[in-house]
Amino acid sequence: MVKKVSILGSTGSVGTQTLDVISHYPERFEVEGLAGGYNIPLLLEQIERFRPRKVSVATKEAAEQLRAATKSDVQVLYGEEGLHEIAAGTDAELVVTAIVGSQGLKPTLAAIDAGKHIGLANKETLVSAGHLVTELAQRRGVALLPVDSEHSAIFQCLNGESRDRIHKITLTASGGSFRDRTREELADVTVEDALKHPNWSMGAKITIDSATMANKGLEVIEAHWLFGLPYDQIDVLIHPESIIHSFVEYVDYSIIAQLGMPDMRVPIQYALTYPDRMATPSERLRLSDVGKLQFREMDFDRYPCLRMAYESGRTGGSMPAVYNAANEVAVERFLKGEISFLAIEEVIAKVMDKHSPVPAPDLSAILEIDQWAREEARSLD
Amino acid sequence: MVKKVSILGSTGSVGTQTLDVISHYPERFEVEGLAGGYNIPLLLEQIERFRPRKVSVATKEAAEQLRAATKSDVQVLYGEEGLHEIAAGTDAELVVTAIVGSQGLKPTLAAIDAGKHIGLANKETLVSAGHLVTELAQRRGVALLPVDSEHSAIFQCLNGESRDRIHKITLTASGGSFRDRTREELADVTVEDALKHPNWSMGAKITIDSATMANKGLEVIEAHWLFGLPYDQIDVLIHPESIIHSFVEYVDYSIIAQLGMPDMRVPIQYALTYPDRMATPSERLRLSDVGKLQFREMDFDRYPCLRMAYESGRTGGSMPAVYNAANEVAVERFLKGEISFLAIEEVIAKVMDKHSPVPAPDLSAILEIDQWAREEARSLD
Repeated sequence: MVKKVSILGSTGSVGTQTLDVISHYPERFEVEGLAGGYNIPLLLEQIERFRPRKVSVATKEAAEQLRAATKSDVQVLYGEEGLHEIAAGTDAELVVTAIVGSQGLKPTLAAIDAGKHIGLANKETLVSAGHLVTELAQRRGVALLPVDSEHSAIFQCLNGESRDRIHKITLTASGGSFRDRTREELADVTVEDALKHPNWSMGAKITIDSATMANKGLEVIEAHWLFGLPYDQIDVLIHPESIIHSFVEYVDYSIIAQLGMPDMRVPIQYALTYPDRMATPSERLRLSDVGKLQFREMDFDRYPCLRMAYESGRTGGSMPAVYNAANEVAVERFLKGEISFLAIEEVIAKVMDKHSPVPAPDLSAILEIDQWAREEARSLD
Repeated sequence: MVKKVSILGSTGSVGTQTLDVISHYPERFEVEGLAGGYNIPLLLEQIERFRPRKVSVATKEAAEQLRAATKSDVQVLYGEEGLHEIAAGTDAELVVTAIVGSQGLKPTLAAIDAGKHIGLANKETLVSAGHLVTELAQRRGVALLPVDSEHSAIFQCLNGESRDRIHKITLTASGGSFRDRTREELADVTVEDALKHPNWSMGAKITIDSATMANKGLEVIEAHWLFGLPYDQIDVLIHPESIIHSFVEYVDYSIIAQLGMPDMRVPIQYALTYPDRMATPSERLRLSDVGKLQFREMDFDRYPCLRMAYESGRTGGSMPAVYNAANEVAVERFLKGEISFLAIEEVIAKVMDKHSPVPAPDLSAILEIDQWAREEARSLD
């Protein structure tokens, strides 16, 4: 049985790894649509190799460039409309949402509305609009299949179990690139320092988010929506080796954990093949080679971005969208050298402080508040 | 819904812990029958507290003593017939087989034949007669629910998964009381030394079996039958902390592991409540308190009893029964001070060496071979 797949963000880290997974099983998957940004050479390669019916790029210019360069008869689209078409206008039964940031929200909702199962790699969708997304997915009978390693781990640990028998879930966190520095030592770290992640190779935004622990914060909010759990049932634990990807503790205090080498292709493939499993090109985990796994309690004073994520989640309504938007801009500004590393948390705190949360915002309210939060975050000095 | 339970070996370690679990849920469980040995005072207490309909003890004399002492109208039986009646002659839907040694085989088969689900705590049953037990269980539509922590862990990790997607299972082993001694240092260890197990509090036989790793060997053979896996798919890993109780690696190299404090009541209760879970009196596992988990490869030269268990399993037929019987006698003789610790493995090796395996022995052949192996093991010097 062939599964038809579309990918939003096919030229990014998760997008290319999704295509890598698909390339190992040409008889099992067909690529219907690909949405990329500006990377025309890579898109040309992907079109050549995977023969999608539709492709979308960021702008009209990029589309024209792509059309001129490709020999295939693929339909080339662009902009927000193009993205919408890749999300909702193909025969795909599964859409992998691998765009970074809150721009993923609208196409994800469109895909769900069109009845497509979602391979969810865009955290911000659930963070900003968890109530809308989960409600629509339930109404359309659509599965939200987590693609990042922590949520895939939890999802796998829940197999065959009853969700009302969960005592707690725990997301593990490597601690990021500054794990062993004190807060004092963080004052003047550089962009280069921050981009060295100990275990995973990822994009710049998410690497900084790992260092501030904002990434784990977004994951906590995502887990809240994905698994329908209150924040008191979601813990975070520092686990430097990133071997235990996350775990579920049940009411009998039995813990089920998912482990593996840090290789995104495993959770990506699981979302593609669920509930089945197939061989992966990943390396095998040999615990005797690893030797030991270490754990230590999360320190919320050390990582205020995580503390604020919990706060925004518990406040609910529009607050997580504000948290996320402020963080996105703050990280952008840090990467440009405009603000210091520790200013990231200050920007988030100030923008959240200024916001009066709206209880159950609809899509246009969310997008408006998102815009407002970005402008606030940009104007702070 | 009340579940009716009988326990074979109610006065032993697993038996008393099973009753402890049941005592926390008087509205969920009813005790139909208890089979003990000679511990009349404890049986009297258990009769008083759990009000079984039938009780069986080891001998006629013990039965008379018990009858004279109890105020209840419980039916008191004894010997092999009594054990058979507790196994197969009550209204229990689940029989916990917690007798140690190959004496558990016949009553377990009787319980299965009577259509009762089995909470399997008697390893030797599957080791000596795995082909008969699993075949009968399948024919009678009876579940074999593992009670020891390793197999319960594997069983839990298989929830909701397809067994033909297993790549390997790994049983963890603490390494026993002599983990950190060289083979040279084992030459003159005493019974007292051997009885100090680092993590679990267990009976004498199983503690010695942990030190020789024969226990893990029996578990490997048990796992072979319980999960229908060839020996090449069953690994053993040294994990001193006994926190990861065992794990399953799937074909996608995703590993699902079960973790918890070393507390037998958790796997016992899981067998009683499966597929549901309920709160246990066990302590919660806090990985940040444990700090680290360690792993090292199994050394088969260091633990020849484990190597021989694999050999007996791969040979199949009657050989595992011989392995088990020879080991039981050897341990008995070590505990009596008749032979040295390292002579345990020699006894097993010599008895296995003398045996010409029978391919698919029936029950009487197994019992006969078991007897022969015991006599051989007793006569060696």
